Amino acid sequence: MVGIIMGSQSDLPIMEQAANFLKSLDIPYELTVVSAHRTPERMFDYAKTAKERGLKVIVAGAGGAAHLPGMVASCTTLPVIGVPILSSNSIDGWDSVLSILQMPGGIPVATVALNGALNAGILAAKIIGSADEMVAENLQKYQDSLKDKVLGTVDDIKTKHPNHFDQ
Amino acid sequence: MVGIIMGSQSDLPIMEQAANFLKSLDIPYELTVVSAHRTPERMFDYAKTAKERGLKVIVAGAGGAAHLPGMVASCTTLPVIGVPILSSNSIDGWDSVLSILQMPGGIPVATVALNGALNAGILAAKIIGSADEMVAENLQKYQDSLKDKVLGTVDDIKTKHPNHFDQ
Amino acid sequence: MVGIIMGSQSDLPIMEQAANFLKSLDIPYELTVVSAHRTPERMFDYAKTAKERGLKVIVAGAGGAAHLPGMVASCTTLPVIGVPILSSNSIDGWDSVLSILQMPGGIPVATVALNGALNAGILAAKIIGSADEMVAENLQKYQDSLKDKVLGTVDDIKTKHPNHFDQ
Amino acid sequence: MVGIIMGSQSDLPIMEQAANFLKSLDIPYELTVVSAHRTPERMFDYAKTAKERGLKVIVAGAGGAAHLPGMVASCTTLPVIGVPILSSNSIDGWDSVLSILQMPGGIPVATVALNGALNAGILAAKIIGSADEMVAENLQKYQDSLKDKVLGTVDDIKTKHPNHFDQ
Amino acid sequence: MVGIIMGSQSDLPIMEQAANFLKSLDIPYELTVVSAHRTPERMFDYAKTAKERGLKVIVAGAGGAAHLPGMVASCTTLPVIGVPILSSNSIDGWDSVLSILQMPGGIPVATVALNGALNAGILAAKIIGSADEMVAENLQKYQDSLKDKVLGTVDDIKTKHPNHFDQ
Amino acid sequence: MVGIIMGSQSDLPIMEQAANFLKSLDIPYELTVVSAHRTPERMFDYAKTAKERGLKVIVAGAGGAAHLPGMVASCTTLPVIGVPILSSNSIDGWDSVLSILQMPGGIPVATVALNGALNAGILAAKIIGSADEMVAENLQKYQDSLKDKVLGTVDDIKTKHPNHFDQ
Amino acid sequence: MVGIIMGSQSDLPIMEQAANFLKSLDIPYELTVVSAHRTPERMFDYAKTAKERGLKVIVAGAGGAAHLPGMVASCTTLPVIGVPILSSNSIDGWDSVLSILQMPGGIPVATVALNGALNAGILAAKIIGSADEMVAENLQKYQDSLKDKVLGTVDDIKTKHPNHFDQ
Amino acid sequence: MVGIIMGSQSDLPIMEQAANFLKSLDIPYELTVVSAHRTPERMFDYAKTAKERGLKVIVAGAGGAAHLPGMVASCTTLPVIGVPILSSNSIDGWDSVLSILQMPGGIPVATVALNGALNAGILAAKIIGSADEMVAENLQKYQDSLKDKVLGTVDDIKTKHPNHFDQ
Repeated sequence: MVGIIMGSQSDLPIMEQAANFLKSLDIPYELTVVSAHRTPERMFDYAKTAKERGLKVIVAGAGGAAHLPGMVASCTTLPVIGVPILSSNSIDGWDSVLSILQMPGGIPVATVALNGALNAGILAAKIIGSADEMVAENLQKYQDSLKDKVLGTVDDIKTKHPNHFDQ
Repeated sequence: MVGIIMGSQSDLPIMEQAANFLKSLDIPYELTVVSAHRTPERMFDYAKTAKERGLKVIVAGAGGAAHLPGMVASCTTLPVIGVPILSSNSIDGWDSVLSILQMPGGIPVATVALNGALNAGILAAKIIGSADEMVAENLQKYQDSLKDKVLGTVDDIKTKHPNHFDQ
Repeated sequence: MVGIIMGSQSDLPIMEQAANFLKSLDIPYELTVVSAHRTPERMFDYAKTAKERGLKVIVAGAGGAAHLPGMVASCTTLPVIGVPILSSNSIDGWDSVLSILQMPGGIPVATVALNGALNAGILAAKIIGSADEMVAENLQKYQDSLKDKVLGTVDDIKTKHPNHFDQ
Repeated sequence: MVGIIMGSQSDLPIMEQAANFLKSLDIPYELTVVSAHRTPERMFDYAKTAKERGLKVIVAGAGGAAHLPGMVASCTTLPVIGVPILSSNSIDGWDSVLSILQMPGGIPVATVALNGALNAGILAAKIIGSADEMVAENLQKYQDSLKDKVLGTVDDIKTKHPNHFDQ
Repeated sequence: MVGIIMGSQSDLPIMEQAANFLKSLDIPYELTVVSAHRTPERMFDYAKTAKERGLKVIVAGAGGAAHLPGMVASCTTLPVIGVPILSSNSIDGWDSVLSILQMPGGIPVATVALNGALNAGILAAKIIGSADEMVAENLQKYQDSLKDKVLGTVDDIKTKHPNHFDQ
Repeated sequence: MVGIIMGSQSDLPIMEQAANFLKSLDIPYELTVVSAHRTPERMFDYAKTAKERGLKVIVAGAGGAAHLPGMVASCTTLPVIGVPILSSNSIDGWDSVLSILQMPGGIPVATVALNGALNAGILAAKIIGSADEMVAENLQKYQDSLKDKVLGTVDDIKTKHPNHFDQ
Repeated sequence: MVGIIMGSQSDLPIMEQAANFLKSLDIPYELTVVSAHRTPERMFDYAKTAKERGLKVIVAGAGGAAHLPGMVASCTTLPVIGVPILSSNSIDGWDSVLSILQMPGGIPVATVALNGALNAGILAAKIIGSADEMVAENLQKYQDSLKDKVLGTVDDIKTKHPNHFDQ
Repeated sequence: MVGIIMGSQSDLPIMEQAANFLKSLDIPYELTVVSAHRTPERMFDYAKTAKERGLKVIVAGAGGAAHLPGMVASCTTLPVIGVPILSSNSIDGWDSVLSILQMPGGIPVATVALNGALNAGILAAKIIGSADEMVAENLQKYQDSLKDKVLGTVDDIKTKHPNHFDQ
C-alpha cells in the first residue's frame, strides 16, 4: 500500500524508519532505490505505474538537490511525501529541504522535517487511516503511547533533579 | 470532508486558494479562523472533534511562529497539511516555514511551499483521491490541464521570441 | 515560584542550568517534562493552573519546531521565558529559535539565546527581583562575581601571552 | 515603572506600540532616545540609575548591530526586554535579531520578535503583573479581548467564503 | 546550436537575455517552454533528442524548487547551464539556487547567478567558442566592449564627483 | 590621500557618501570606477601604483560576487576598506558581504556594513587620524556632533510622545 | 585540454576528483596551484595564456571569499568551471558558494555544488564532448554505469530490508 | 602601539594569532581581556584612554552577540578592528559576524573574517604601515613570502598528482 523510495542506498538508515513504523502498524509497503538523476526512466516507470500496482501513498527521500519527490509527484495522482535527507556536502540540509518543499503551484509534495522519515511513515499511515478505521485506531494508540512515554519520564526527571523549595 | 483553518482573517486571500481548488473538484469543505495563540480552546476543540465531524483532512495555514498546524496535528489522527504564510514582520517567511516543517518525531505535518495554499488544496484532494477513484480521476484531468496550459504557451512564446538560425 | 518545563527528557542537561542558577539564589522552583505535541492536555493544564499554584514565571525549553513556550504563553498571564534548544536533526538551531522568537502580536515569549538556559534562569530571577529587593541584591552580587571572574583572568592571560614592546 | 528607550528617533513608530499598550493598561512609563554608540555615557547613566529611579523593567529597541539592549542589561539587575528593529540597510533583520538574542551567559536580554514592540509592552506588563494582581487581571482581560476579536471574524469570514458541501 | 528552455512563460523576460546575447553573436538557438513538473514527458523527449537534433548546449531556467536543469542533465551528455530565477513566493531565491546548484555527484549543472540568463548565454557561447575560433574571437570583442564601457564612465563619474585635493 | 573606487557607475550614490565625509573633514581623495572583472588590468595598475601615488588608504565598493576589495588588497600593502553593496539580483546582499568579508589568511579587507560607505569614509579618516592629530581632532568633533544630534531629538520625542504617569 | 587549478594545496583532496575523472576518460589535463590573492600575477598569466597553450576549459576551485574562478574568467574567453570548497573557518560554505556563483553580468562562471570537483570534471568533459564525439560516447557510457550502479543496489537493499506485505 | 582585547579568556587561542603576527614584525602591542557585558566600566576606561596611552589601533575579538568591538569604537577616534569568533552555542558564527559588521552610520568597525585574528593583526600592521615606511616594507616582505610559499607547493603538487597527457 505504501511505496518507499530513496535516491541512494546511503539513505537507507534514515528511510528504514518509515518502513519500520509501517511494519509496526502492519501496513504493507515496498522499499527500493530509485534515483531521479541516475535512473530517470526507472523513476518515471515507478511513478506512472504506482497507482495501478495498488499503492496509496509514496514516500520519497533524497538529499542535496533532491528532485525525486517532486518528479514522482508530477507523474501520479497519488499523494507523495518528501523526506529531505542531510547528505555529505549538503549545505546544512537547506538544499534538500528547499528543493523538496518549494514545489510550484499544481504539483504538491507533502514535506516533512530534515531526516524526518519516521514522521513520513506516520503521515503515510494517517493518509491511509483517513479512509481506514483500523489504521486510524492504531494511530490513536500510537499517539497515546507517545503521551505515556513522556509521562513515564516525569518521575525519572524528578529523581534526577528534584524541585527546589526555599525552606 | 476537508477542514480549512487559518490563524488570522488576514490569511484569507492565500487560504482561499485551497478552498477554491476543492470547490472546482466538488469536494466538500469548511473554512474558518482558528488561532492557536488567541483561541487555544477553540483550536483544541476543533482538532479533537474533527474526525467525528467527518473530516478526512485538515489544511491549516499560519504565519510567523506558526504553531497552528503542529498543535492541531497533536490532537488528531487525521493528516494535517501545513501552509506557511508570509506575514508582515516575518523574517522572509523562514519563521513560518521552519515552525511548521520541523516537527518532532511522532507528530508529522505535511508541509507545502510558502504561501502554497493551492498546493495544500491539491494535496488534500490527492489524499482523498487515494481512496476515492472519482477524485483521483478528476485529479488526473487537472494534471492534464496543467500540461495543456504549458503546451498552449509554446506557440505564444514562439511568436514573441522566434528561434534564431544562423544560416 | 518558577516553573521550569521542557519538551523532552533529553533537554535536561541544558535546562538544568536554569534550575541550578535559581537554586544558587535560593529561589524555589519546580522542574518537569511537558510536551506540547505529545501531551497537549498536560501542557494546557500546566499553563492554566500555573498562576494559582503560585508560580511567578515559567521557563520553557524546546527544540525543532518548538511550540511549547508560545502555547504556554497563550494560556497564562505569567511571563514565559523561551529557551531554544539545539536538538538532533535541527537545521542548525534556526527552527527552534524562530518558532519561539517570532510570536504574533498579543502573545509574547521572552526568548533567550540558543541553549541559553542559564540566561533563562537569570532572567527569571531578574523578573522576580524587580519586585523583591533581596533577589535583586543577590543578582547584583552575581553580576559583580562575573566581573571578578573576568578580572581574575587578566593576570593569567598576561602570563600566558605577555605584552610585546619593541625594545 | 517601565523605561522605554530606542537607539534612534526613527524607531519611534515601532517603539510607540509598547508605550501605547502600557498606557491602555494605565501602567506608567517614560520614553526617550538613548544611543549605545552615539551617546554611550547617557546609556550607562540611564541603565545604572534605572532601578533607583523606580523603574521595574526596561524595554530597549534598536536596529542593525543592536547593542543597546545588551549593554543596558550589563549595567542593571532589572529585566531588559530587547526589540529587534528592521532598519534600512539591515540584512533582512537578521543583524538586529542575532545581536540582541545571542547574549553570552550571565547577561540575558528578553528578546521579542522583529519589530515586536507591542509584544515588548505586553511582556513588560506581564513582568509587572507577576507581582501586581490588578495588572494581571487587566492582562487577562486583554487576552480575552484577543479571543473575542478572533471569534468576531468567524462570521465575517463565513460570509466572505461560505463552506462548500457537495450536494 | 543552443537550446534555451524555461519552466514557465513568466520566465521569458529573464531568459530572453540569453537568447539576445546569442543573437548578437549570430549563434543559432531555439527557445521554448518545457516544464519538468507539468510536462515531464516533453522534458524527457526534449533532453533525449537534443544531441541528435544538433544542439551543443542547453540553457535551462526555472524558479522555486527548480528541477528542470538537473532533470534535463540526467538525460543527455550535453552540457546543461542552469539559471535560477527569482519567482513569486520564492524564499528570496534560495530555493531555486540550491535546487539547481547542489546536484549529486555524476550529474553536473553549470549554474549561474540568480536571474543570470545573460551570463548563461555568454557561457553557452564560451562553450561553443572553446571549439569554434570565430565565436571565441567574437567573445573577445565582447569582453573588450565591457572594458570600454567601464572606461567610458570614468570621465562621466569625474564630472559628477570630481576628486578632492586639500588645497 | 584616500582612493575611492567602485565596480560600477551604479554604485556612485552609495560610494559618494564616503567621499562626502572625507570632504567634510578636508581630507583629499580621488574617486573613480575600477572593475575587477571588466577591467582587470586597470585594477592591477591602480592597486600596484596606489602607494607610490601617495594614497594612504583605499576604499573599494562592489556588489554581488564582489572581488574588487580583495583583489586590490592582494596587490598593495595599503589598508583596503571594503564596502558591500546591495545590487539588483543580489541574494539580499549576502553574496557581496561574504565575498568581501571572508578573505583568506594573509590578505585582510577591512569590511564595513552593507551599503556602509559613510562608515568606510569615517574608517579611512580614523586610519589617517591614527597618525595625524588634526584629523583625529576633527573626528572627535564629528563623534561629538553625533551625540549632540541624538540629544537634540530627546525633547522632540518627548513632545511627540510624552511620558505617561499613572495619576 | 583541461586546466585544473586551486587556491591552495589543501584543496588537492577535493580537486583531484576532477582530475581523476578526466584521466578515466583519457582527457589530457594539467593540475597546479594558483592563488588569486597570494600570487595574483601568476593567476593573470595563467588565465591570459590558457587559450594559446591549448586549454579548452579551466576548472578552478577555492574556499572562503573565493575569487579565483571569477578573476580567471575575467581574463579569458574559455569557459571557467568554479568549485566552491568548504574550508576551515568558512561560514558553512556559503562564502565560497556565493562568491563564485553570483558573478556580475558579462563574466559567467559555471558553478557546481559545494566540494563538487567530480562534477566539475564531468562538466569539463561534457564541454569537450559537445564538439568531440568520442568523449561524448564515453560520457554516455559513464552515465550508463551510474544507472547500473543504482540498479546493482536494488537487490542488495531488498535483502537488507525486504518488502512487507500484510499477510 | 596596538591594543588587542578579547571578551573572554577562551578567545585567546584565536586572538593570539594577531599578537604573534605583530610580534613577527616587531610591532609593540598589549593583549588583555575586556568584557563589554561583564566589565563595562573597564571597557569604557580602556577605550577612552587608549589614544592617550599611545595606541594607534585596537583589535577586539568577541563571539555570540559581540558588542565589544562596536562599543569600543563608540568611545575612541582610533580605528577599531573587529574579529568575529565562533564560540560554543553560536548559530554557526552568524551572530558574531553580524553584530560586529552591521554597525550603524557614524561608528565603523573594520571587520575581518570569522576567526580571522591573523588578518586582524595584518590589518593593524597595514594601518600603522600607511604612515610608517619600515612597517610597510616588512608587510611587502610578508606578502612576498606568501607568494613564495604558494610557489613552493607547485612542485610538490606536481609530484603528488602529475599532469595527464593523452598519449
